Amino acid sequence: MPDDTKLHAQDGDVVLLVGVKHKNHLFRLTAGKVLQTHRGEIAHDDLIGKPWGSVIRSHIGRTFHLLEPTLAELILELPRRTQILYPKDIGFILLTIGAGPGKRVGEAGSGSGAMTLALSEAVGAGGHVYSYDSHPDSLDLAEKNLDRFGHPERVTFRQADIEDGLDAADLDAFFLDVPSPERAVPAVHGALKPGGGFGCIVPTANQATVLIAALEATSFAFIDICEVMLRYYRANSERFRPTDRMVAHTGYLVFARPVLA
Amino acid sequence: MPDDTKLHAQDGDVVLLVGVKHKNHLFRLTAGKVLQTHRGEIAHDDLIGKPWGSVIRSHIGRTFHLLEPTLAELILELPRRTQILYPKDIGFILLTIGAGPGKRVGEAGSGSGAMTLALSEAVGAGGHVYSYDSHPDSLDLAEKNLDRFGHPERVTFRQADIEDGLDAADLDAFFLDVPSPERAVPAVHGALKPGGGFGCIVPTANQATVLIAALEATSFAFIDICEVMLRYYRANSERFRPTDRMVAHTGYLVFARPVLA
Amino acid sequence: MPDDTKLHAQDGDVVLLVGVKHKNHLFRLTAGKVLQTHRGEIAHDDLIGKPWGSVIRSHIGRTFHLLEPTLAELILELPRRTQILYPKDIGFILLTIGAGPGKRVGEAGSGSGAMTLALSEAVGAGGHVYSYDSHPDSLDLAEKNLDRFGHPERVTFRQADIEDGLDAADLDAFFLDVPSPERAVPAVHGALKPGGGFGCIVPTANQATVLIAALEATSFAFIDICEVMLRYYRANSERFRPTDRMVAHTGYLVFARPVLA
Amino acid sequence: MPDDTKLHAQDGDVVLLVGVKHKNHLFRLTAGKVLQTHRGEIAHDDLIGKPWGSVIRSHIGRTFHLLEPTLAELILELPRRTQILYPKDIGFILLTIGAGPGKRVGEAGSGSGAMTLALSEAVGAGGHVYSYDSHPDSLDLAEKNLDRFGHPERVTFRQADIEDGLDAADLDAFFLDVPSPERAVPAVHGALKPGGGFGCIVPTANQATVLIAALEATSFAFIDICEVMLRYYRANSERFRPTDRMVAHTGYLVFARPVLA
Repeated sequence: MPDDTKLHAQDGDVVLLVGVKHKNHLFRLTAGKVLQTHRGEIAHDDLIGKPWGSVIRSHIGRTFHLLEPTLAELILELPRRTQILYPKDIGFILLTIGAGPGKRVGEAGSGSGAMTLALSEAVGAGGHVYSYDSHPDSLDLAEKNLDRFGHPERVTFRQADIEDGLDAADLDAFFLDVPSPERAVPAVHGALKPGGGFGCIVPTANQATVLIAALEATSFAFIDICEVMLRYYRANSERFRPTDRMVAHTGYLVFARPVLA
Repeated sequence: MPDDTKLHAQDGDVVLLVGVKHKNHLFRLTAGKVLQTHRGEIAHDDLIGKPWGSVIRSHIGRTFHLLEPTLAELILELPRRTQILYPKDIGFILLTIGAGPGKRVGEAGSGSGAMTLALSEAVGAGGHVYSYDSHPDSLDLAEKNLDRFGHPERVTFRQADIEDGLDAADLDAFFLDVPSPERAVPAVHGALKPGGGFGCIVPTANQATVLIAALEATSFAFIDICEVMLRYYRANSERFRPTDRMVAHTGYLVFARPVLA
Repeated sequence: MPDDTKLHAQDGDVVLLVGVKHKNHLFRLTAGKVLQTHRGEIAHDDLIGKPWGSVIRSHIGRTFHLLEPTLAELILELPRRTQILYPKDIGFILLTIGAGPGKRVGEAGSGSGAMTLALSEAVGAGGHVYSYDSHPDSLDLAEKNLDRFGHPERVTFRQADIEDGLDAADLDAFFLDVPSPERAVPAVHGALKPGGGFGCIVPTANQATVLIAALEATSFAFIDICEVMLRYYRANSERFRPTDRMVAHTGYLVFARPVLA
Repeated sequence: MPDDTKLHAQDGDVVLLVGVKHKNHLFRLTAGKVLQTHRGEIAHDDLIGKPWGSVIRSHIGRTFHLLEPTLAELILELPRRTQILYPKDIGFILLTIGAGPGKRVGEAGSGSGAMTLALSEAVGAGGHVYSYDSHPDSLDLAEKNLDRFGHPERVTFRQADIEDGLDAADLDAFFLDVPSPERAVPAVHGALKPGGGFGCIVPTANQATVLIAALEATSFAFIDICEVMLRYYRANSERFRPTDRMVAHTGYLVFARPVLA
């Protein structure tokens, strides 16, 4: 039986209000607070206790849907300083590096915390995430986003230049999203357990070629490189066709495993 | 600190032995058993206690890598009766329907259990999966695959024609992979909590158009349709290029949410 | 030996002036005329006699390149009323329907004349194009575009509802770009010689399925359907990667040949 | 009015016989000859005078369709020694480099003559093609293919190492398909008229980056790089969907124009 409290928005829940044309508001419900939107005000107290999926009206009568955000929506709505990773890439990465329940995983950099959020959800209460970034501003934002929307107790943030080595060891998986990933390869090799799952995203083909060479030089095997393309269609049963434009590229995904010689 | 037993293959662990040209063997380690391969015999006892990532030799000297399979590898190696879902689709679906830790999710049909395995890993120990199929043979195989490679205690299998309705209610998410998904839409609407996550895969554009119409007629909103394309590259730093051929299509993914009128 | 006049822009030539950020001007050189641009004036007389590829300055000193437009550039710059066909599609269509030198080909509708222009260039001086459209405005624009930029003497324009039948017969190839192509299939079958090349573009999957059924019902064989996707890369040798966004869809291309029973 | 002889296969015509499952035979009709197939013999004399599009039977009763090959079919059926260019790329290249009627164009290497054939058809009777290759075997095959299936009188073949320079000058367009195109860039710049159309295909990203740098160093402007992807669909009006697999990559297309400083 489902916990009945899960069917209604509760004080402290993260909610997504979706307006017309999918203009969205992501926030944590706090008794007494009021949300200001371009389409009117909404008191948090009016949302607490409402069933998920309800239609909500602002004080000027504009309508919104009250939704419990999925991980994909959280990621897309996350406050960010830099380009974030897309769900199309994150979903495939989690499965491919083996970032499942109970695993101890690392990542660098923390960025805006999108991948940190996904990793901390994927490893569950029994796992842990070590998140490294050399920029205090990125760490700050990532921590703030985890506090607001995720499981901060599952994440250890560290300001560190990953090229200097990592204090974590025997990790099950590691994800790398830094400007020069090839320089981090030895440190990541040292932090991963043999046979662990390594993943990396790089925007350019030049970076991919340099990374491949670094992985081959550092006892990584099973190198796989790919790109994930996502094409949306119009939800029109009489005129079914792809949308006019799409994202053409987010990055090349590089996967490998450290092996024992 | 990592549990040291996680660094070595243990009796009872699921292992992946990868030979040259990536010819793979997926099985559960059982003391006393012997694996027969086209490239020689390997005693399970010789693998138990070996570090993950080790190079293993068969009795005729052929080499294999000893790996802990990731979810993506489990899915690709799963014994199957029918076309399975690919990790490229599964990863995106999990994030998009919100199948995370602690959730109660449903699926139909069970098929070979690839999605069941992924859902049961994604919802963690605190969640639950309800898996429906009308074919006893599919249920059998899915159950067997969960027993061998997954978390059977998190899954309730039911032989049922989903068009007749479902015994689960207020589910957080539901994934549909059946020949005529449009007929199952009312039952799925009844089983999902308002605002829950609905996902479906259909091979043909004709099915997608019929499904869109059925969703619109049954109080589903936020309908999104897309396809995920995965293109691999050769792992050659001097000659970086896509592979010659790729999978062109697995299916159209259709997402929606049931909403309160 | 090349005709020396071909190396320099001549009175009467169609020219393309390309400014910074590729803001373009397409026009026919006419002694005495003056081109007005947002970046200054340029007298046609200053262009006549200049070598192709020259850098040109407007009266306020802004620079442009003087180019002889390729067919792809002509098509992309053509004055239009409706969505035009893209070179990625046109190039493949011409080869696939066999619209080569000396052929007699038909098309409907004329649209803005992009395909008319391409066909009239492809069939050469020895071929002919029959172009049908039911809208006088479209015919007008297509004719005007052919007069300005193409070979009007190779094209016969006709205002006609193609569903009523065509006055051309035994054509080598026919290209269809109309809202309900399935209704035109019998007329096109009658106008094509047996074994001729048929091509069509439709934006939606629904139209494609209806067209396939109509072709099968009308003695067409060798039905091929495809889509052409074009992805651009940044011209940066240090950071080689696809552009961020791309055109996701122009249309489904349907090809077939009428055969004798 | 069409020439009636164009409706029937004539002695000397190039024909395509298409059997079931699209097993094809491409040859030139020659009175007195007999075609041997795995599905029986067919006398050329029995084909001469038959309408295009006819169904033909071999001496053991197997059926074939008699077709006039389109340029796309010619290219795909051409006897080859090496990987040929695909129609999806050729069609776009012809339009983009401006290889139209009356143009003088160059290419290197000749390869199996697929692009030579396409260029010689595109430039028409008033144009000319200069085709260079350093391998006598390639030149031989390309010449033979032009003799059999094309317009040999429009083509000048030359055995030459293109890096040593070219004897043609002031060409309207040039297409490059050689292993190290960057080394040929100065020679091609010298052979093209200012503002002419340059195109090249390279299989790897590494080659693309080196070529971009060489073009920038040699007064080429308007550098465009892209790839053309072609995805086929099943011609099934009830089950419309892409084919299971597709060609993932043929090459990166690089375009540019030499400009005057």
